Amino acid sequence: MTEPMSDAHLRERAAKVIPGGMYGHLNAAIFAPGFPQFFVRGEGCRQWDADGREYVDLMCSWGPIILGHRHPGVEAAVAAQQAAGDCLNGPGPVMVDLAELMVDTIPSADWVMFSKNGTDATTQALMVARAATGRTKVLVAHGAYHGADPWCTPSLAGTTPNERADLIEYPYNDLAGAEAAAAQADGDVAAIIVTPFKHDSFEDQELADPAFARGVRALADRIGAALVIDDVRAGFRLDLRGSWEPFGVRPDLTAWSKAMANGYAIAAVTGTDALRGPAQTLYSTGSFWFSAVAMAAAKTTIETLRDTGGLALMEQAGTRLREGLAAQAASHGFVVNQTGPVQIPWLSFEGDTTLEKAMYWSSACLEEGVYLHPWHNWFLSAAHTPADIDRALAGTDAAFARLHAKYGSD
Amino acid sequence: MTEPMSDAHLRERAAKVIPGGMYGHLNAAIFAPGFPQFFVRGEGCRQWDADGREYVDLMCSWGPIILGHRHPGVEAAVAAQQAAGDCLNGPGPVMVDLAELMVDTIPSADWVMFSKNGTDATTQALMVARAATGRTKVLVAHGAYHGADPWCTPSLAGTTPNERADLIEYPYNDLAGAEAAAAQADGDVAAIIVTPFKHDSFEDQELADPAFARGVRALADRIGAALVIDDVRAGFRLDLRGSWEPFGVRPDLTAWSKAMANGYAIAAVTGTDALRGPAQTLYSTGSFWFSAVAMAAAKTTIETLRDTGGLALMEQAGTRLREGLAAQAASHGFVVNQTGPVQIPWLSFEGDTTLEKAMYWSSACLEEGVYLHPWHNWFLSAAHTPADIDRALAGTDAAFARLHAKYGSD
Repeated sequence: MTEPMSDAHLRERAAKVIPGGMYGHLNAAIFAPGFPQFFVRGEGCRQWDADGREYVDLMCSWGPIILGHRHPGVEAAVAAQQAAGDCLNGPGPVMVDLAELMVDTIPSADWVMFSKNGTDATTQALMVARAATGRTKVLVAHGAYHGADPWCTPSLAGTTPNERADLIEYPYNDLAGAEAAAAQADGDVAAIIVTPFKHDSFEDQELADPAFARGVRALADRIGAALVIDDVRAGFRLDLRGSWEPFGVRPDLTAWSKAMANGYAIAAVTGTDALRGPAQTLYSTGSFWFSAVAMAAAKTTIETLRDTGGLALMEQAGTRLREGLAAQAASHGFVVNQTGPVQIPWLSFEGDTTLEKAMYWSSACLEEGVYLHPWHNWFLSAAHTPADIDRALAGTDAAFARLHAKYGSD
Repeated sequence: MTEPMSDAHLRERAAKVIPGGMYGHLNAAIFAPGFPQFFVRGEGCRQWDADGREYVDLMCSWGPIILGHRHPGVEAAVAAQQAAGDCLNGPGPVMVDLAELMVDTIPSADWVMFSKNGTDATTQALMVARAATGRTKVLVAHGAYHGADPWCTPSLAGTTPNERADLIEYPYNDLAGAEAAAAQADGDVAAIIVTPFKHDSFEDQELADPAFARGVRALADRIGAALVIDDVRAGFRLDLRGSWEPFGVRPDLTAWSKAMANGYAIAAVTGTDALRGPAQTLYSTGSFWFSAVAMAAAKTTIETLRDTGGLALMEQAGTRLREGLAAQAASHGFVVNQTGPVQIPWLSFEGDTTLEKAMYWSSACLEEGVYLHPWHNWFLSAAHTPADIDRALAGTDAAFARLHAKYGSD
């Protein structure tokens, strides 16, 4: 590269060769003022942008990083596999190792199919459910994010009505609503798809009511539909066995991706024995779905989480962050809502419907060396030590002070 | 791994944790007898299976490998990017470098959007066309492979009629047929999607008639639809500028993937200035779409192909292989059809409608150390030297001899 490296200059160049200069969930133009677009380095729970600024990373690349950037164990497994081969004429032995590990770890999993994107996995899960039932309709929670294919992307741009015609919406955490949606389908429900908690953008997060979880399980059984948990966002952070396992609710199918390989590109569907035959009838594939390196990364990531108490570390980090933020908000005179599991946290300001305070505060956090998001949940990793959380809290405290100087107390 | 490593034992284990033991295009059960399922190593144009058998690789992992396995230049670029970071809170500067390189290399490209799978790219291209036109229907060639999402997968298992309702089929290389298909849509055609040549499985390949290529370009212009070239399979092997550039036919949108990063997982859509605004309206994204390592691999792959005459090397290798196979078939008394571009070759036996000879011959080739496919086109790389092709030809000759011993001459 002979070009000078700065975020501003990179944006100028990008504007010419990428529509709008950027697209998708990493388009910094739709975050808050001052957010950098380009990043050059990650290490543990720190990231560096193209201008060389260092941040305590509370987004973890929007979920994929769960053991910290460049985790030595994962990188060693990757290097070993890479030295042998990645994309070959068939999968490597590690595909079997990984599938066995997942079947051993996840009580609802009797088999696994791998792919690359979370959207691949949610789409494939619905295909299995449709192949099994011979039915067409799927119940989806209103506003839930299940990926960015035409059937599920939050924007209708570029999609057709037919691509959405097999969906029926229900309100999250509302069993009567789900039952009413099922009734609408008149016996033609292939699947009920549900995220383990409500993590829609721009809204406070909402944990699943255990009675709702058990209720949709019973509803699916009653109508002969598959219960699909979309664990793409929450998977491996809340419970290695699956995010509804603490409720005693086991899905027929689960979609996984994001954190499963500590940043390497992989996704998976796990399912029960009853759906093994139908899964076998699909033609669902991709050029890179069988590549060995991401599978080696996933195997080591899951083993490391299991063997080092990684989920407890994330929970401790999350609790420390939540308690610190609560104390800071109170001391600066702000009423805030902290919602979602502590490992996948979010903070909103009471009554801040225009996101004005969220934007100002997150921009201020950024300037204080803390990368978090104004309208999308954050993610913690097992690499966030108490000292890292305290470093982040020093930044958020300064940002609250600046917010107070601008807006006063609530 | 404490388990003994053999293809047979890996298959036994896989049968328990993967539906049918394997799925998708790398499911060896649907190839020919004796084909190994698991691979452990690739180097240049050679691959090794889990039983340690070495093959001259004429499949190149079904397309992705174009410079040879573990190409030193690509691996060096990968290692450098990996040491800095891959999946971060934003793309790396290499995303801009790669987009600029593609815009500079591909005359029809004014912008680029990256993703992971070929299916991502074909789907995204149709979304752009629909966003641009506000129309719904897409003309697709009968039997063409555009990926494995419900809208395009060759099997209907797990798909719904609505998911296919916006497609209208036309016969490849038949302009009148394409015009008739367009007429059926009554003004509602968003796009015509076409592969640069006909490469349907189980059939002889068929090059595009230049008059057909020019005709669908004119048809798209006349009806105000986007012409989309699906260059996922052929891209970067026939012409770095796009596979129809030699015809002087430029698409509005092109889908790329497979060979673009020598095995690393990436896909892209390129488009014209007129479609930049519509492309900007989509919400199309994925957790790993912005990861820097695959982009670094793609940049080096394309530069290396450009700067080392990689396409000419592939063409020379393909010509040597085709001529050698023609002579061998004749000398053993078989009538064969060699179809498609020489870099993406295929051989079928005249009248072999049950594929009996193809199966026997490809299994024999395998035993003679040559990996090729009985019913899917093959791929060559720039790493196939004349000596490698001669080594392959030694194997194919022995296989023809065995075929002759079994079936006699045609």
